[in-house]
Amino acid sequence: MKKINSSLAQSLLAGDRIALAKAITLVESASPRHHREAQKIIDEILPYTGKSIRVGVTGVPGAGKSTFIEALGNFLISKKKRKVAVLAIDPTSTVSKGSILGDKTRMESLARNENAFIRPSPSAGVPGGVAAATRESILLCEAAGYDVIFVETMGVGQSETAVHSMVDFLLLLLLPGAGDELQGMKRGIVELADLLAVNKADGGNLQKVKLAQAAYKQALRLFPPNENGWKPDVVTCSALTGDGIPQIWKRIEDFEKLTKANRWFHVKRQEQSRQWLRERVLETVIKQLRENPKLKKKFTELERQVENGKMSVISATRALVMSFTE
Amino acid sequence: MKKINSSLAQSLLAGDRIALAKAITLVESASPRHHREAQKIIDEILPYTGKSIRVGVTGVPGAGKSTFIEALGNFLISKKKRKVAVLAIDPTSTVSKGSILGDKTRMESLARNENAFIRPSPSAGVPGGVAAATRESILLCEAAGYDVIFVETMGVGQSETAVHSMVDFLLLLLLPGAGDELQGMKRGIVELADLLAVNKADGGNLQKVKLAQAAYKQALRLFPPNENGWKPDVVTCSALTGDGIPQIWKRIEDFEKLTKANRWFHVKRQEQSRQWLRERVLETVIKQLRENPKLKKKFTELERQVENGKMSVISATRALVMSFTE
Repeated sequence: MKKINSSLAQSLLAGDRIALAKAITLVESASPRHHREAQKIIDEILPYTGKSIRVGVTGVPGAGKSTFIEALGNFLISKKKRKVAVLAIDPTSTVSKGSILGDKTRMESLARNENAFIRPSPSAGVPGGVAAATRESILLCEAAGYDVIFVETMGVGQSETAVHSMVDFLLLLLLPGAGDELQGMKRGIVELADLLAVNKADGGNLQKVKLAQAAYKQALRLFPPNENGWKPDVVTCSALTGDGIPQIWKRIEDFEKLTKANRWFHVKRQEQSRQWLRERVLETVIKQLRENPKLKKKFTELERQVENGKMSVISATRALVMSFTE
Repeated sequence: MKKINSSLAQSLLAGDRIALAKAITLVESASPRHHREAQKIIDEILPYTGKSIRVGVTGVPGAGKSTFIEALGNFLISKKKRKVAVLAIDPTSTVSKGSILGDKTRMESLARNENAFIRPSPSAGVPGGVAAATRESILLCEAAGYDVIFVETMGVGQSETAVHSMVDFLLLLLLPGAGDELQGMKRGIVELADLLAVNKADGGNLQKVKLAQAAYKQALRLFPPNENGWKPDVVTCSALTGDGIPQIWKRIEDFEKLTKANRWFHVKRQEQSRQWLRERVLETVIKQLRENPKLKKKFTELERQVENGKMSVISATRALVMSFTE
């Protein structure tokens, strides 16, 4: 094994939560010096990553995502001896009524547990974007020994595509509202989900929950099947009472078993890495274009001309790449 | 107006079908000289593009896409005085049982009409990819005066994402099989569609078609609504008898009216151009990396290291961009 030089990386690998929190702060920092430091740490801890199951949890505000993750997280720690990390992508924190996890007290009991690590979503302004920071935070959590990573997202804007590109399993949490509750979510989200769970199956809701489950089950039959052989299904749960929570975990375990056996688990992670590399190269190139004062003007101008149909994409690309390589 | 220098561009703008066919051949050619020629033509004709409605038609093999386009195309020419072009993306021609439009005779009556232009899908090996060639072919058809452009795709692999990124309206053609017929299509396609049409509503099929329509209608209710205010619906048709064909065109007209009024039509086209520019810049950069013998080795090596979790994406990007800008 390579020697670990950074003391922060050493502490992180030993499972030190403060070191983990510090490393994530470096990843999210807008300072180029912090960012370089973060990259050194990631390079060092990389051999110790990848061993967790990465679970995305999405759904509209009010679907009970935080309560659900808290219930499932507590179950995993107490019954399954797992270590649970929770990260959030919230690109809408400036427009929505509040950040998903802006307030740690929303997962009070889980946050108090020493086998849990909860990280509120970063605000905007992270270099490379919030999604890139979350991807790197996943690696840091894995190196610190967390073997179940939840990525919570509101599923609006681009965040559901982003979360799909960084998790192994995507859970869509629904309210018993037969579709109306998906208002504001991005189209395509239902078909991206590996499991749908109608939450709030408690109190006087049971009848409505069963109806919603049946309707969604019926709808899923009309979707093209997954390449990986997994059949998404619709279950019900109550994050409040805990009903259905162990069964949901069983589904995630089944998924992991199936896709590891048929290699899709591995194939998907490789594809995610390749995709991420391409995105980063593009972002870096575009960033360099934008930061060079001479090129910046040119890029903005070309972009506008293309948008307005005044210049073809090919010509603009040629002009851009020529300025760039000059 | 700018003077048109190329005689091919002049003939094309005059509506000459042979010139149009030649220009598309240049766009699809693997020869760099042809490709440069094509780009000159596109730059010249660009001011005369964008005036058509671009309609994607997708569905599994056997759904009747060709027969459907032929029926709708003949209707548009005879009843609506439109000029109709048909292009195809078929990235699977090597693996599937045959090219979608490999054989023009599949749209015999439409192909004979002087107000129709039908172009079989290019085989692989087009620089910039088949999707890029199709995007440029759309522009060429528009410049030649075609005001309804159909893009036919099998909706497998990446082609349905590609077609969605180049059309205004996406139609999903279904068989009355309640979901089983979507086998092999990419998940997400149902939610990307602006209209679902259950085809083959003729003969003894009527009952099955009605059942499929009802099931899909029910399922659509469970999807998040479109940002553009359009409500996708499920209709029935028979490409064979022509039943339902005028009604489908009415839906497309309604869509155009609505999204032009609320500006989403324009917004989507701008977004498509921006996205396309970014993709092309990335492709060009990656192509240059791959073509430079020194960089090629490095890129392949880094890509493998990232895929296998031996190197972080950020470090690989930094290494790549450094070699590139050196």
